[in-house]
Amino acid sequence: MKKIPEGVFGRLPVYLNCLLQLQNEGVKTVSSNRLGLWTGVNPAAIRRDLICFGNYGIKGVGYAVGPMVSEIQRILGSDRPHKIVLVGAGNLGSAIAHHSGLKNHGFHITTIFDSDPDKVGTMLADVEIVDIDKAGEVIREESVDFAIIAVPPAYAQAVTDRLVEAGVSVILNYTSMMIRAPEGVQVHNTDPVKELLVTLHTLSAKDNLVPT
Amino acid sequence: MKKIPEGVFGRLPVYLNCLLQLQNEGVKTVSSNRLGLWTGVNPAAIRRDLICFGNYGIKGVGYAVGPMVSEIQRILGSDRPHKIVLVGAGNLGSAIAHHSGLKNHGFHITTIFDSDPDKVGTMLADVEIVDIDKAGEVIREESVDFAIIAVPPAYAQAVTDRLVEAGVSVILNYTSMMIRAPEGVQVHNTDPVKELLVTLHTLSAKDNLVPT
Repeated sequence: MKKIPEGVFGRLPVYLNCLLQLQNEGVKTVSSNRLGLWTGVNPAAIRRDLICFGNYGIKGVGYAVGPMVSEIQRILGSDRPHKIVLVGAGNLGSAIAHHSGLKNHGFHITTIFDSDPDKVGTMLADVEIVDIDKAGEVIREESVDFAIIAVPPAYAQAVTDRLVEAGVSVILNYTSMMIRAPEGVQVHNTDPVKELLVTLHTLSAKDNLVPT
Repeated sequence: MKKIPEGVFGRLPVYLNCLLQLQNEGVKTVSSNRLGLWTGVNPAAIRRDLICFGNYGIKGVGYAVGPMVSEIQRILGSDRPHKIVLVGAGNLGSAIAHHSGLKNHGFHITTIFDSDPDKVGTMLADVEIVDIDKAGEVIREESVDFAIIAVPPAYAQAVTDRLVEAGVSVILNYTSMMIRAPEGVQVHNTDPVKELLVTLHTLSAKDNLVPT
């Protein structure tokens, strides 16, 4: 297989989301122009990207949705299921647990942890809520690599430390507090308004931005 | 002022979040190595980035946190307040309304819209919940440019169409449904697991990824 440049790679989840939605709607083929409208990526760039991992385009018809979905999932590794734990069963945790994006991409929440005794033992999105004090034990027993943190900001770092101790190697942090972890553990601090900040600038001061 | 390359620009919100947190903790200076640990960006790349818009580094001491925060906010345009409306007062909407990231970056939610009569008229994070049927009127009266969509996926496109009609020009979509808007309207379809997907691949198949 051809090597895939990192820039292309970062756009694959965007294409995949779009293709999955088209597949759900029963659409069989899609043009790069239509993919461009949906993703905000320039159609010429889409064509260049997709040629990197095999050409599913048919001139005058477009790209075959099904085969592209399978190929991108295979490349990303999301064609296989992956266990993930969620810490925090509040508003944010509930929203994440119900979001179809996780399941669509092969991430199955095995356990949700919370410290609230009223929540422990109940179900959220068909998953049991377990006492946070059992996190280490459960994560080790089930060999879970991935975790999502959706606790109040003040607890984010303490929860991270526990998860790392239990052997989690990839953490997606949804709190507003940036967290740190030792080398070897990947932390993704998400920012809900990052896109807005970039947009803000392009709206207000187009002249001091140059393409790279 | 020097022109700022797009690549650098996309990382400014990441640096800003980190610097704001340090500022909150009373930290006055920070080294590129420490910024690297927090942001996951290579310290040498951080130094190259920061030199693009003025050099706040003092050899052996680090970067002055306060002046850097001000300068990045000025460049991004987040030193001025911006009105934003939120559509959807469910779990996701509540989580967003309470997230400090919005306020930290100058986005003030002026109105929250929902269609649930039990919610309309009540407050969420100190903001009144207004009937979605009044969205057009309110948005036009208050000249709001920005909107966040946090409704059930099935309603995402219909809500988008209403917002666009009312004159909103930038939409941040938090639903799992990708939405489209006419030219001139910027849509950001967020994906909660994009970072996980990229990580998944780097974990499982390091050999077919090449740096660009």
